[in-house]
Amino acid sequence: MLVINTIAELTRIVDEVKSEGKTIGLVPTMGALHDGHLSLIKRARLENEVVFVSIFVNPVQFNNQDDLVKYPRTLERDVELIGEYADYAFAPTVEEVFPTPPTEEYHFGPVEEVMEGAARPGHFNGVGVIVRRLLDWVRPDKAYFGEKDYQQIAVIRELVRQCDIKSEIVPCPIVREPNGLAMSSRNRRLTPEQFETAANIHRILVESQQLEDVPQIKAFVEAEIAKYPEFKLDYFEIADADTLQTVHSMADAAGVMGFITVYVGEVRLIDNIRYK
Amino acid sequence: MLVINTIAELTRIVDEVKSEGKTIGLVPTMGALHDGHLSLIKRARLENEVVFVSIFVNPVQFNNQDDLVKYPRTLERDVELIGEYADYAFAPTVEEVFPTPPTEEYHFGPVEEVMEGAARPGHFNGVGVIVRRLLDWVRPDKAYFGEKDYQQIAVIRELVRQCDIKSEIVPCPIVREPNGLAMSSRNRRLTPEQFETAANIHRILVESQQLEDVPQIKAFVEAEIAKYPEFKLDYFEIADADTLQTVHSMADAAGVMGFITVYVGEVRLIDNIRYK
Repeated sequence: MLVINTIAELTRIVDEVKSEGKTIGLVPTMGALHDGHLSLIKRARLENEVVFVSIFVNPVQFNNQDDLVKYPRTLERDVELIGEYADYAFAPTVEEVFPTPPTEEYHFGPVEEVMEGAARPGHFNGVGVIVRRLLDWVRPDKAYFGEKDYQQIAVIRELVRQCDIKSEIVPCPIVREPNGLAMSSRNRRLTPEQFETAANIHRILVESQQLEDVPQIKAFVEAEIAKYPEFKLDYFEIADADTLQTVHSMADAAGVMGFITVYVGEVRLIDNIRYK
Repeated sequence: MLVINTIAELTRIVDEVKSEGKTIGLVPTMGALHDGHLSLIKRARLENEVVFVSIFVNPVQFNNQDDLVKYPRTLERDVELIGEYADYAFAPTVEEVFPTPPTEEYHFGPVEEVMEGAARPGHFNGVGVIVRRLLDWVRPDKAYFGEKDYQQIAVIRELVRQCDIKSEIVPCPIVREPNGLAMSSRNRRLTPEQFETAANIHRILVESQQLEDVPQIKAFVEAEIAKYPEFKLDYFEIADADTLQTVHSMADAAGVMGFITVYVGEVRLIDNIRYK
């Protein structure tokens, strides 16, 4: 696997690959790779002739400076980990991607106004800015994203639709730790005790699938989360799986999902589950 | 010359050209081509191995619906005219370029806040939206723009800087009618009498070059324009040639230019001249 640091080299290689008529899969990541990322990369490997993995901690999608500073960076290990599956790792500096701070604003509509969009002002705009650039540079046939960030996928689908980008966006299922916790680079910031306690987020969501009614589920999840002094609930929303707008009854939408964000100590974790 | 109508075909051809290692020149136009456009295309021909001309009346850069509707469209003649110099004409439909209305907003800073930016709300954002897409799809080594739209070039330079686009932006001198009027597709909407009268815009600007002082020039140009009942001055600004911000004295900037916008009947014409 070749590690690329500049856009010039990246686009030169993409041109070569395209000229050979080969299909391209892209897995955009912020590094600190775990088995969730690996599942995307392995799938990209199966479905494409050439696989690019981008590793870039995108500063413009962090609304919280502290979160940006503490975001784990493990480039050497990342490169080792994916060498078997990817053909190219694109790991540019911030200066290479943003020689000047980007100022463009996207308007993704209702899907960006709720949940993560409401809780993290500017976050999805920053996601749009970097994903558009990566898709423009790599021009993949398919780009792979994990469903832990379910709302992000909805936003990226809207980006691709609005900007007439020809890549297919492929959502991939959440990969979990043996204890059920959704894999996340931020899990590395948990103490061993917090890591075990955090497993209850998924357990509570799974138990809530047994309940039938939206208000019941909401009350149950909120009450269960409140039992753990280590948890601080940011939000738990039950929403239409397509539009991401809140539903008040299971009858309100064809697909219904629960979306949760919990602080475990200082670490903000997100997860989701399908009810219908 | 081949006429291309779809983005898929365009990017396929660009990939081919790139794989052959050939340089690409792009001349973005809104059609209704005249000798001003031809001068850009001829220059592109000299400086690149493959020349693309885009012909697309971009609805999102028109702040005035009437102007959009009345903008001249002469595709067949355009294709004939450029056949000798260009390799590919890209003439997509609005639906191809904007399957859904674009919503992204750019922030180009001070260069977009004055003159055309102030007079035509949303205009430069629309320019940014289309130029970014064209540059992404064609990936030219060089892209050519006429200096009649001097402020537009400043905005596009800022776009390219902000979005880290690797194309060189090449400004090209204004081409004029024998009577001095700056060539513009909108000139076709002038009556023969208006066409002759409109030549005074350039004449007045040239005469104003004899004056030394900014207030003097401003007073002279405004008074001269006012002598023609067919003219309605939109603005005349004397500004820094780099930042486009108003100057009050020739000493205020290294380069100083005059920028004028005049309605001749219903047709809005722009022109500019260098003082220093």
